[in-house]
Amino acid sequence: MKQIKDAPIGVFDSGVGGLTVAREIMRNLPYEKIVYFGDTARVPYGSKSKETIIRYSRQIVRFLKTQEVKAIVVACNTASALALETISKETDLPMIGVVEPGAKVAVETTRNKKIGLIGTRATVKSGLYQRVIQKEDPQIQVIGQPCPLFVPLVEEGWLKDEITLEVAKRYLDPLLAQDIDTLILGCTHYPLLRSLLKGLVGDQVTLVNPAYETALALGRMLEDKGILREGKEEEFPYRFFVSDEEEHFQQFANSILPYDVKTTEQIRIEEY
Amino acid sequence: MKQIKDAPIGVFDSGVGGLTVAREIMRNLPYEKIVYFGDTARVPYGSKSKETIIRYSRQIVRFLKTQEVKAIVVACNTASALALETISKETDLPMIGVVEPGAKVAVETTRNKKIGLIGTRATVKSGLYQRVIQKEDPQIQVIGQPCPLFVPLVEEGWLKDEITLEVAKRYLDPLLAQDIDTLILGCTHYPLLRSLLKGLVGDQVTLVNPAYETALALGRMLEDKGILREGKEEEFPYRFFVSDEEEHFQQFANSILPYDVKTTEQIRIEEY
Repeated sequence: MKQIKDAPIGVFDSGVGGLTVAREIMRNLPYEKIVYFGDTARVPYGSKSKETIIRYSRQIVRFLKTQEVKAIVVACNTASALALETISKETDLPMIGVVEPGAKVAVETTRNKKIGLIGTRATVKSGLYQRVIQKEDPQIQVIGQPCPLFVPLVEEGWLKDEITLEVAKRYLDPLLAQDIDTLILGCTHYPLLRSLLKGLVGDQVTLVNPAYETALALGRMLEDKGILREGKEEEFPYRFFVSDEEEHFQQFANSILPYDVKTTEQIRIEEY
Repeated sequence: MKQIKDAPIGVFDSGVGGLTVAREIMRNLPYEKIVYFGDTARVPYGSKSKETIIRYSRQIVRFLKTQEVKAIVVACNTASALALETISKETDLPMIGVVEPGAKVAVETTRNKKIGLIGTRATVKSGLYQRVIQKEDPQIQVIGQPCPLFVPLVEEGWLKDEITLEVAKRYLDPLLAQDIDTLILGCTHYPLLRSLLKGLVGDQVTLVNPAYETALALGRMLEDKGILREGKEEEFPYRFFVSDEEEHFQQFANSILPYDVKTTEQIRIEEY
């Protein structure tokens, strides 16, 4: 058991966005080791089909197994919504996505039972957030809005920009018009727009960040299974792998992680 | 020779953008058959590395050869800039990209020898447009500007939108401030923004559309090699292949082609 406890957690995303989830795991579960994989050669997933996302996710799980991880976090809303159900049945490793933890906290948060959901086209279209929420409380209304420009705006670095604000207004006005009191940031890039979005929706609307909720849910899952790592923190117990070149990934990682990522390894994910 | 003349032209792109090139080939070389491949499972290429784009392009060339094409058009600026030189040496099929035809017309167009270039990060960073242009005339100055938001704006359908105009101003103002008189639309999506861009840059700046120039250059190349197809037009001599699901591709194709695309076939490009 000691050996399993000591094993790293596998965390994967279509690219850099899942680093916001890794960051929350680092903050909230500081003893855990992490192997992160970002599928930068095939990013983004949000505009692709379910079948393709399942195929890609399967390859990533096979890769993470070669790293002897003890659990897997699907740190990508699109893959959580479209692939998690299928791939979790195919492996005996404990697996958690970002949708369920985010959805459950949204249910606890809403008072008027009107929840807004923003994400990629694929995530919103999948209806998974809706299903999880309405299983908890069928009276809650979930109003989804795909925001395909948010990821490129974040990657352009326009986080507090007039143009980003205009785009956000365009996307969010229909949700605000329907009087939502809770808004799920249903894509791992969106927490980086948090302060801009908060300024736009005002104090009446609570933002739910599934990245944070997922880190807490992961901690509970590891504890339940008796495989939470104990003992002292290690120097830098994190390894990063990508499918395209390391440079851009490392820049982005260093801009959002509280550590300096000095090495990233490139692998050929399609061979797994 | 008759048999080779009758063979289709292979046209490929990272996704749907190359359809603007296919459209120009259909218009300008109406007797030619086309096999189009859009790499929709791995789109976009513009933010990925040279090594990855070469690997993807190699697989596509292998696929197009199974379709017995007589020539290949790399209808993607990023792949033309980063992969064409390598992959054209590896095959005996005549091959043409979009960069050279566009660059040469820009050289003929400019009067003040200041050319603006807009494209993806990878295309601009590659410096290929600059090299081709300065080989023709070393005195010409090429001012490059990556416009990573244009593709998602086009795919959002915001072609004549206030927000798109603001983004375009942000990107183009530095080029206009440097007094360019010619602007290369260095990404196959950008011709769809043509009227918005034209309104912004005014009559002083001539827009160069490499898609159109490529179709003309392809015609000359086929004629030189004696493999231009002759005879009567066929009903619908075009076949479309993609690496992700057909639906979104077909919608986009039908919105920009002068024909109705009724069938698209999905293949697993990583197996080639």
